[in-house]
Amino acid sequence: MSFNQAELGFDIVIIRLGGEIGIKAAWTRKMYERRLIGNIKAVLKYYDIPHEALNRRFGRLYLKTSQAQSASQRLARVFGVSSVSPALKTTSKLSDIIDKSVQVAGSTLKKRSSFAVRCRRVGEHTYTSQDVCREVGRHVLDTYSEHGLRVDLKSPDTTLSVEVREDEAYIFTDVMRGVGGLPLGAQPKAVCLLNENIGSAVACWMVMKRGCPILPLHFSEDPAFINEDTDRALKAAKTLFEWAMGFPRKVGIVSHGLNLAQIEQNCPKKLKSVLSKRVMYRVAKRVAEMEHAEGIVTGESINEAAGQALHVLSLQDEAAEPFPVHRPLIGLDAAEIEELARKIGIHDVVVQKVDVSEAPLKTEVAISREEVSQAEENLNIDELVKRSVEAIKTLSL
Amino acid sequence: MSFNQAELGFDIVIIRLGGEIGIKAAWTRKMYERRLIGNIKAVLKYYDIPHEALNRRFGRLYLKTSQAQSASQRLARVFGVSSVSPALKTTSKLSDIIDKSVQVAGSTLKKRSSFAVRCRRVGEHTYTSQDVCREVGRHVLDTYSEHGLRVDLKSPDTTLSVEVREDEAYIFTDVMRGVGGLPLGAQPKAVCLLNENIGSAVACWMVMKRGCPILPLHFSEDPAFINEDTDRALKAAKTLFEWAMGFPRKVGIVSHGLNLAQIEQNCPKKLKSVLSKRVMYRVAKRVAEMEHAEGIVTGESINEAAGQALHVLSLQDEAAEPFPVHRPLIGLDAAEIEELARKIGIHDVVVQKVDVSEAPLKTEVAISREEVSQAEENLNIDELVKRSVEAIKTLSL
Repeated sequence: MSFNQAELGFDIVIIRLGGEIGIKAAWTRKMYERRLIGNIKAVLKYYDIPHEALNRRFGRLYLKTSQAQSASQRLARVFGVSSVSPALKTTSKLSDIIDKSVQVAGSTLKKRSSFAVRCRRVGEHTYTSQDVCREVGRHVLDTYSEHGLRVDLKSPDTTLSVEVREDEAYIFTDVMRGVGGLPLGAQPKAVCLLNENIGSAVACWMVMKRGCPILPLHFSEDPAFINEDTDRALKAAKTLFEWAMGFPRKVGIVSHGLNLAQIEQNCPKKLKSVLSKRVMYRVAKRVAEMEHAEGIVTGESINEAAGQALHVLSLQDEAAEPFPVHRPLIGLDAAEIEELARKIGIHDVVVQKVDVSEAPLKTEVAISREEVSQAEENLNIDELVKRSVEAIKTLSL
Repeated sequence: MSFNQAELGFDIVIIRLGGEIGIKAAWTRKMYERRLIGNIKAVLKYYDIPHEALNRRFGRLYLKTSQAQSASQRLARVFGVSSVSPALKTTSKLSDIIDKSVQVAGSTLKKRSSFAVRCRRVGEHTYTSQDVCREVGRHVLDTYSEHGLRVDLKSPDTTLSVEVREDEAYIFTDVMRGVGGLPLGAQPKAVCLLNENIGSAVACWMVMKRGCPILPLHFSEDPAFINEDTDRALKAAKTLFEWAMGFPRKVGIVSHGLNLAQIEQNCPKKLKSVLSKRVMYRVAKRVAEMEHAEGIVTGESINEAAGQALHVLSLQDEAAEPFPVHRPLIGLDAAEIEELARKIGIHDVVVQKVDVSEAPLKTEVAISREEVSQAEENLNIDELVKRSVEAIKTLSL
């Protein structure tokens, strides 16, 4: 790629924290940062990335590692990280900065390309930021004069960045965008209804991104748990857990087939969907209580032409009380959900179908609270829920 | 811009519908399309854009207008539109296609730039799609030979698109991305809590994008409704209504100052926030009932380090029952919310502050259901709500 064939050993990764972390009150910020550091260490351990130190300075994290490039790619996917740069560290002596900058330029600039030098400086130095830009630019042009480089301050092919912080300096060209969000574990755990469709997995990821570790619950219609849907849901869970290094990788599988059979036998057909959901929510609520989780997450979105639909949602929510039901996809388009699925890596794992709030219901079917209560009495619903909770099979993925 | 100075008169706008509309069952799809056509006509009327016809053919809408360029820009912002192209219409005769394509090329290609010709064809014709690409490409190169154009099929600067549909053909180069979503009015109306902060306005917009017309309710602490916060909220509402041409532009203003005073006088301080929210939700519920709305929308997001926070949410939700409370921002980062605010056009109107679920509450304050009920009895909350609802001032913006 570059004209300098010698491999450049970046020796440090600059990790920039999400803007939301910086503006928190001191106590919260410290807690978030501690979480983030713990999560970063779990990723380094999982991928066996050697490192000497992980320091917090100047509102950033600096990771000293011989594998700065690959570490950067991994760390860009840690929630709470806004961007990362593999960098070369040196002292704040101008001659050192020039030497190392020339080295970085040699291994990243392409022949006949344009570049700019930018400098940010914190602390007292014998030179200005402009001095750094001018001197580094001149030395790069001189050193590689045969390669037809040119300076373009407006839209350079490459920006050579020099950050001088007190008595240290960091030189880099690449700023990889991080996933953002809040550090996982900064928020309480959530129980997530995870099925084989794209929506529920994306919903899980969105609450993870906001700091909630997840406990996915999958409701299987197959008593042996070996049908294709369960398989897909488990694959989705595995992919989600790759975003949650260091956190439990547990999935609960609920045998829901028997519940559905009971509902079909004993209740009006039009109530099947809402009753099935209410059983699920009740089971999720029990699990949330046992596991000290604080909310229930589903992948439903507003998607049907129905005056009835939103009322049905509230009939469902009732069953989860006192836990709030979160629907992070409620304002998203199918195309946006698919785009997220690609980013997360679950797009080819799950079924390309977005959940609708009340799938099997037609627009004009009115359902009253009384009908639902009556049906649940006929069902002996507490028994159904108790049996389902007792029979939950927990897998560690 | 282009080398042909003569103004090209595009005479038609191709309007592509969001993918979610096309996959609906026939009845729903028709309803959605009717809505979308109505909404498009309202925009044309509002902006005084002359047009002769708006036809539905081949799964798209075709708008005949002498102002295709400006109409396209407006229509790209109609919910349910996935993209638009100002185009030149001609017959499916190959010689006509070539003539018009050369014309379009002349007024859009830049000197020394690259282009590609793409052709999509529906129907029976005496030529293939490849014939069209080859012949159009050849004629463009010949006609403008002095301008140094070149063909680049892989990453052209401009793509010249030819769509042949039965006996008609459309030629265009620009595909403007539309806002997506579902046509406004495809879903029931929602009552939205709108304050002066960025989050609540973005939340409104997100449910609008999913098809729900909004009725914003603003809770003002100032009895005269003339403080800065109310002013900001009204400006935000005005901006939101620009996305809702043809729909009512009503905002309800609730005098909330007296409620807050009562709460402060009669209740423990730690309950102030949750009691205030519960009054708001109750008022919103009454308005939703009167206005036949189907849900309540708030701009809250998961944003605090609190085990307590989610329980507080559920205490709030309770007050809105049986209406579901939607929080479209629940899975979004502050940066994502800001980006949306810029796109919507409210970024400079409102305060750059994201709502938090339980703003004035500290992490460790436990609140029980019983305390809340007791406090509301002391407050005579039904009276408060009744008074607030009766005193709502409705503005038409």
